[in-house]
Amino acid sequence: MNELEIIERIRCIASAGPRIELGIGDDCAIYRPRPGEDLLFTSDQMIEGVHFLSKHNAASVGERALARSLSDIAAMGGEPRFCLASLAVPRRMETWIVGFFRGLMRLARRTSTALAGGDLARSKIIYCDVMVCGAVARGKALRRDGARVGDAIYVSGRLGKPWDRRINPRLDLGRALAGIATSCIDVSDGLSLDLHRLALASGVAAEIDRVPLARGATLDRALHGGEDYELLFTLPPGAHVPAGTSRIGTIVKGRAGGLKLNGRPLAPRGWDHFAKRAP
Amino acid sequence: MNELEIIERIRCIASAGPRIELGIGDDCAIYRPRPGEDLLFTSDQMIEGVHFLSKHNAASVGERALARSLSDIAAMGGEPRFCLASLAVPRRMETWIVGFFRGLMRLARRTSTALAGGDLARSKIIYCDVMVCGAVARGKALRRDGARVGDAIYVSGRLGKPWDRRINPRLDLGRALAGIATSCIDVSDGLSLDLHRLALASGVAAEIDRVPLARGATLDRALHGGEDYELLFTLPPGAHVPAGTSRIGTIVKGRAGGLKLNGRPLAPRGWDHFAKRAP
Repeated sequence: MNELEIIERIRCIASAGPRIELGIGDDCAIYRPRPGEDLLFTSDQMIEGVHFLSKHNAASVGERALARSLSDIAAMGGEPRFCLASLAVPRRMETWIVGFFRGLMRLARRTSTALAGGDLARSKIIYCDVMVCGAVARGKALRRDGARVGDAIYVSGRLGKPWDRRINPRLDLGRALAGIATSCIDVSDGLSLDLHRLALASGVAAEIDRVPLARGATLDRALHGGEDYELLFTLPPGAHVPAGTSRIGTIVKGRAGGLKLNGRPLAPRGWDHFAKRAP
Repeated sequence: MNELEIIERIRCIASAGPRIELGIGDDCAIYRPRPGEDLLFTSDQMIEGVHFLSKHNAASVGERALARSLSDIAAMGGEPRFCLASLAVPRRMETWIVGFFRGLMRLARRTSTALAGGDLARSKIIYCDVMVCGAVARGKALRRDGARVGDAIYVSGRLGKPWDRRINPRLDLGRALAGIATSCIDVSDGLSLDLHRLALASGVAAEIDRVPLARGATLDRALHGGEDYELLFTLPPGAHVPAGTSRIGTIVKGRAGGLKLNGRPLAPRGWDHFAKRAP
């Protein structure tokens, strides 16, 4: 297959979406926004040898590549609209490309995300970058900088799950929290690091006293493991608590970004691509 | 530097843009669309060893990475609004990352493109993917599927230029053509391949009888060389012809995508990442 033929295959797998005036095949995709909406934009890279291994099948890599960005849309209370997928692969992997897009589209259909475009290239290792556009009612996006002293800290699901090829982005929960939660972030790099980021952005400190553990998880993994893709959020006193979430602590006065677990300082040490690793 | 420190450096280099409600630092960027506008989306990858070499300096790679996507916005008559830049680099290249974003922002400021977000990761080779969002008045985007029999074919500038680190995206020309040209595409993979794509999308054939050559360029390079980043467009009879452009031929009846040069069939053979190369 040459490039035009591969793109034609992808176009057949992709489905058009509402408000996508023009999808795959031109220089740009065209999207017509609804009046009164804010648009959310996020992108996430997945690289062979870093985020997945060549033995993982193409469809699960494609699904996961989209899921990671959808989790960011969920964390801001958005509804996904469309994505652009950039993919670079070695020679003679045309069938892998098709498998990748089959997996991506499986999740895209379940979440009403159109595949509107992207870019294909060659490279020595597999590389992908998925950009997702989502929408929220004007001014209603959940941000990480709104936590206030006295807010309760909640997390969805359980933490420290073993690496799983399936990610279930918490889109319904995120939408339910929009307009209720004071702040929100997705736990993609470990509870301690993501709670540190939320508290830092909000200019507050956080104290936690319990962590809902996944089956077989250690506390260390649940605190610093990463890749849980649950939502971590804060609720003001008296707010309605959505089902499937657990209170883990409280926002307090203190050094911005400071964390305590059961009264003791807790260092944020989740996944950081650029940090020097402990020896 | 750890990841938070690098992101803080990038945030200082980046400038905020109008209608960017929230930029670098949260799960997603927030953009508030103007009423009556259509949004354009494109992304382009640049990979070390394929699109540039490690000896090229970081700033020119960053500038070029943005320029390639801006050229797609130009080809649809859009005005750039913001970009997301995803970048993966080997260890100990933190200063390279900063250089990359300095170069990207140099062009971003010249073209009023805000840097609203992106993603950083580690990889063995340098990889980047830049997504640009642009805007056009509702329904006024230039597309590649509108060429009609009898239209004249034009190209901006001269073709077959040697590889140059500087790309000057034809944003002003694209905006001037919106509402005038019947179709447009940017010459990024070679005149013959891009004209073939335009004619194929429009369901027409094309005959060309002259090609404006860059200084020192061969006809073969001008036809099939790629990376010129000029605009190739069609005008209906009697339309105003913008300065700095040359008529190169005419849209005719025939097999969709068929090309002729001076009456002889011309095979499209520009840059295709996936085509088998001639031996």
